[in-house]
Amino acid sequence: MDIIESSKRLAAYTAVDNHVKPEHKVIGIGSGSTVPYVVERIVQQGAEANKGRVFIPTGFQSKELIVSSGLGLGDVDQYPTIDVTLDGADEVDSQLNCVKGGGACHLREKVLAEAARTFILVADYRKNVQYLGTNFLQGVPIEVVPFAYAKVLQNLHHVLGSPKATLRMAVKKAGPVVSDNGNFIIDAPFDREKMIDPFTIMAQIKMLTGVVEVGLFCRMAKAAYFGNEDGTVTVRWDDGKIDQVAAPV
Amino acid sequence: MDIIESSKRLAAYTAVDNHVKPEHKVIGIGSGSTVPYVVERIVQQGAEANKGRVFIPTGFQSKELIVSSGLGLGDVDQYPTIDVTLDGADEVDSQLNCVKGGGACHLREKVLAEAARTFILVADYRKNVQYLGTNFLQGVPIEVVPFAYAKVLQNLHHVLGSPKATLRMAVKKAGPVVSDNGNFIIDAPFDREKMIDPFTIMAQIKMLTGVVEVGLFCRMAKAAYFGNEDGTVTVRWDDGKIDQVAAPV
Repeated sequence: MDIIESSKRLAAYTAVDNHVKPEHKVIGIGSGSTVPYVVERIVQQGAEANKGRVFIPTGFQSKELIVSSGLGLGDVDQYPTIDVTLDGADEVDSQLNCVKGGGACHLREKVLAEAARTFILVADYRKNVQYLGTNFLQGVPIEVVPFAYAKVLQNLHHVLGSPKATLRMAVKKAGPVVSDNGNFIIDAPFDREKMIDPFTIMAQIKMLTGVVEVGLFCRMAKAAYFGNEDGTVTVRWDDGKIDQVAAPV
Repeated sequence: MDIIESSKRLAAYTAVDNHVKPEHKVIGIGSGSTVPYVVERIVQQGAEANKGRVFIPTGFQSKELIVSSGLGLGDVDQYPTIDVTLDGADEVDSQLNCVKGGGACHLREKVLAEAARTFILVADYRKNVQYLGTNFLQGVPIEVVPFAYAKVLQNLHHVLGSPKATLRMAVKKAGPVVSDNGNFIIDAPFDREKMIDPFTIMAQIKMLTGVVEVGLFCRMAKAAYFGNEDGTVTVRWDDGKIDQVAAPV
């Protein structure tokens, strides 16, 4: 296993060990490349621990993961309050703001993050940055209604200061990416000045007519776990505390 | 023709006569029961006037109207700037804020309203109120992504102060109304205190995760035309001026 994969696994295992407790019965499962390790570690807690638990997915990928792991599948409409949601991120800043939506699931991810009593981020060391936009350069993912995408792009280019915002194009279909909700995705890069204050730019984007959701999650997480190259895990907490911990067994 | 229908026609005819000029080549056509009279009056301007004009619809209803009237159909992606958009409203207050979305087309309507150099409202006298929520009691129409509707309802009930907000149910299909964009519609009534300042409540609703668009249009119109029972038309302008004019021939 290469160093990036193993650091994802480290972060996921440590986060599950610390936050998925026997008393937690409703658990949100996010999207992205770190999440399979989250589910793997939860399965390792054993059939007894997982009996009577319900797992709520953020999209097709996590739904398949839950089902193929033999865990109980649930729906956020039926379980509006979630004990803990674990999710990946494309980048996390020093205040636990993060960019999400590389996988175009950020609307459902945000619903599950808001519904959770505790929201935990898991990622590898490359996602651990002081300011958003340091390593993840493709920009802020924005879900838009297809009918309105051209006007949203125009507003991003000329009003909100993202001249390079573009419609995300699909790879294995012709035309644009379509989200699990049937919408389009725009990727809008902003300069450092704007990304220092993600809440403000998030609110400005969300207010545009036709925007469904913005892939900026501002101060929603309780903690972020980053697997490091040296086999340790860095844990950042919402009160600013930073722990450096050894890898789990 | 009954008095309400004839007052709709009065408003539509007067608005078209005043705002759809020979130099206007790109025209937005809204939704609702007054809009057929708008199209009727535009057709009366003659084939010569309408040659070379493009009409942009806000939804299925107005698209059908444009096509069946033999007018040229266009798309907002191709014509991002519209000379004038004419649209109905469920209610218009003294500052030209309005409630729209009784017909579940308010997202597309807002896109065309924003894209227009001049946005004109047409309605009958019942829609002419000092404060929104006076006659139109079903509430503010809110378009939401199906996945998130339960959380949005929860937030409307417990955070934003609309305990009676409900999912709009369909009449000729089972289950909820589905908008032309594939989303659900919530109707959220608010008390007078909130409706006095529609912009604030609009922004609060729009910021909820899962909300696509809110049927409150704040200070977007240049003028609102109301047909009256006595055959006159009341015109309210965005500068506060009010005209009382005789019906067109």
